[in-house]
Amino acid sequence: MALEVAAPTNAKKVAPEEEHPRKAFGLAAHDSSGLLSPFPFSRRNNGDTDVTIKILYCGICHSDLHKIKNDWKDTIYPAVPGHEVVGEITEVGSNVKNFKLGDKVGVGCMVESCRSCPSCTTGFENYCPGMILIYNSVHPKDGTMTYGGYSDMIVVDQDFVVHIPESLPLDKAAPLLCAGITVYAPMKYHGLNTPGKHLGVVGLGGLGHVAVKFGKAFGLKVTVISSNPNKEKEAIQRLGADAFLVSSNAEQMKVAMCSMDGIIDTVSATHSIPPLLALLKPNGKMILVGAPEKPLEVPAFALIFGGKTLVGSPIGGIKDTQEMIDFAGKHNVTADIELISADYVNKAMERLAKADVKYRFVIDIAKTLKSDI
Amino acid sequence: MALEVAAPTNAKKVAPEEEHPRKAFGLAAHDSSGLLSPFPFSRRNNGDTDVTIKILYCGICHSDLHKIKNDWKDTIYPAVPGHEVVGEITEVGSNVKNFKLGDKVGVGCMVESCRSCPSCTTGFENYCPGMILIYNSVHPKDGTMTYGGYSDMIVVDQDFVVHIPESLPLDKAAPLLCAGITVYAPMKYHGLNTPGKHLGVVGLGGLGHVAVKFGKAFGLKVTVISSNPNKEKEAIQRLGADAFLVSSNAEQMKVAMCSMDGIIDTVSATHSIPPLLALLKPNGKMILVGAPEKPLEVPAFALIFGGKTLVGSPIGGIKDTQEMIDFAGKHNVTADIELISADYVNKAMERLAKADVKYRFVIDIAKTLKSDI
Repeated sequence: MALEVAAPTNAKKVAPEEEHPRKAFGLAAHDSSGLLSPFPFSRRNNGDTDVTIKILYCGICHSDLHKIKNDWKDTIYPAVPGHEVVGEITEVGSNVKNFKLGDKVGVGCMVESCRSCPSCTTGFENYCPGMILIYNSVHPKDGTMTYGGYSDMIVVDQDFVVHIPESLPLDKAAPLLCAGITVYAPMKYHGLNTPGKHLGVVGLGGLGHVAVKFGKAFGLKVTVISSNPNKEKEAIQRLGADAFLVSSNAEQMKVAMCSMDGIIDTVSATHSIPPLLALLKPNGKMILVGAPEKPLEVPAFALIFGGKTLVGSPIGGIKDTQEMIDFAGKHNVTADIELISADYVNKAMERLAKADVKYRFVIDIAKTLKSDI
Repeated sequence: MALEVAAPTNAKKVAPEEEHPRKAFGLAAHDSSGLLSPFPFSRRNNGDTDVTIKILYCGICHSDLHKIKNDWKDTIYPAVPGHEVVGEITEVGSNVKNFKLGDKVGVGCMVESCRSCPSCTTGFENYCPGMILIYNSVHPKDGTMTYGGYSDMIVVDQDFVVHIPESLPLDKAAPLLCAGITVYAPMKYHGLNTPGKHLGVVGLGGLGHVAVKFGKAFGLKVTVISSNPNKEKEAIQRLGADAFLVSSNAEQMKVAMCSMDGIIDTVSATHSIPPLLALLKPNGKMILVGAPEKPLEVPAFALIFGGKTLVGSPIGGIKDTQEMIDFAGKHNVTADIELISADYVNKAMERLAKADVKYRFVIDIAKTLKSDI
């Protein structure tokens, strides 16, 4: 679940050529059909603290689908999605210290923040009220819209770029920029990174499968909880989970009651919360990273007995994103992906709407995004 | 909000005289009318690790009212309520180390636990699945029902008894055994005891008014949030709150957005949760100690944006209860009470149902509970 913030609808401004002289090319949705089509546009010049990135790969997050279809009623068209960006640096500004030409880097949901609020100054730019998203935000520097990673290049301030460890395959690393940090950060901050603890992962999609991998890399016991019994084999054999629960199997759920230190709930379809809370030990924490459309129904007693926590978490700060991807490099955590060509993207969106992907589509931007498609 | 656990309905057993030879007298409800009437019963002999307490005062918690009316469908009649007990020790067992005759002591919701589970061994008996409540529980030693503090005496294991500091008036200390620990423990465990932090207290009843006092004793900024604008004066002038918000005043609520480190929600009537979550800073925590009958409706995004926590909390462990009441003694934290005689208890329940009390009824047991009423 990527972080999405409503942009003011009256702020749309086409960048004049002097502000955005760099020609770029991407895939944009133009209305709530969500259909993506070729879109020539422009980006700003590389400033003193900027890096320019030739985009190699970009993951497709489910929130991209919500956004292009205006499901959250805040989309400004044309919208170029994409916030799981991996690429190569082709230009660095004069004040850039930490990057050089040819570096393999990643960009996630955020490209700027206020830098002065309590959140920014403590490494939680993801909570900054002035945070600027990689697409569908209004950039404060010139009032123009931001465009995301379904495009050939991007100019980003160095402070919102992370290094990709050499050990990671770039295509499989791309989804870590959103899916990875979205599960890693709350596991870190809610104490679910201590060997021996028992983690439940609800839902086995883009986020869930990465949560299983991070959980195992942290040394946890990991149980996958899914409504689909057919996922047991892949959860255990392919992803390395220790156990599997079918959420509709009352007997299985009863046996597992009060057994988990924490749960990461990645499901964005409506589902019942109390049976999941019942799986937690006293003081256990259930972390929401999926966002069902309807409000969750939470009986107060389901939280009061056992002192249980329901907590949300949105992506993570930049420092944590670098830490996450370094950890992934060290422990060989990558996303399982289906690499697609740019001209397959609308079909991919159709399949994503049916959860027909294992587990993340990644667009092979460099090889397949051509301005003549 | 006291902790209430369903007792097995087939477990009712009248204690034979050899097991419960001590004559006792109390007030019991006999059906879901909730009407309390004189009730002669018996208690066990004082065992090696027990103390016998002559009850002086007993607070009336709102959960007593729920229980005698069988609102939670788990009441076993006859039920003698009362879990905010203060009294004087009249007998000590041969293995009792920490108490002596004449000591002023308190007993709260719990009178026994398994003593071996991870919760018990870490001071959280309140999470023990084998925890025995002071009334309406089945005691594991002999399978008989427990009877609470609306009675003249009680026999309790020493490990579930706390000392009342000399500085505290006993009648005003009684409600601390439930209301006090219920707000103190989560303030401690969720970091809301650090001077300078900003605490919101939702609802100004038995729990809320004590939360305000503990908040001020911790050195917090305390804002009371209430649906009743008439409570502003008492919140600020009588209880020492720093600010007051009317929950229905959208303008006031908007100005206070993102300003609080934590909130204690003591309200058990149905109310809207998202406007309260909006008052929290990033990473802020909202603690539920009141339990509305209907499930809370919680939009996932209201927790995800800002990484906010909704956490329940049930009373507290015994060690924390002693710490709480020692802290109260040091900082002169007591409940504001209306001291009543035992024959007023049914009228008090009527008034409590209408929230017509500032802020806790306490029964003057020693002076007014007579077996001839």
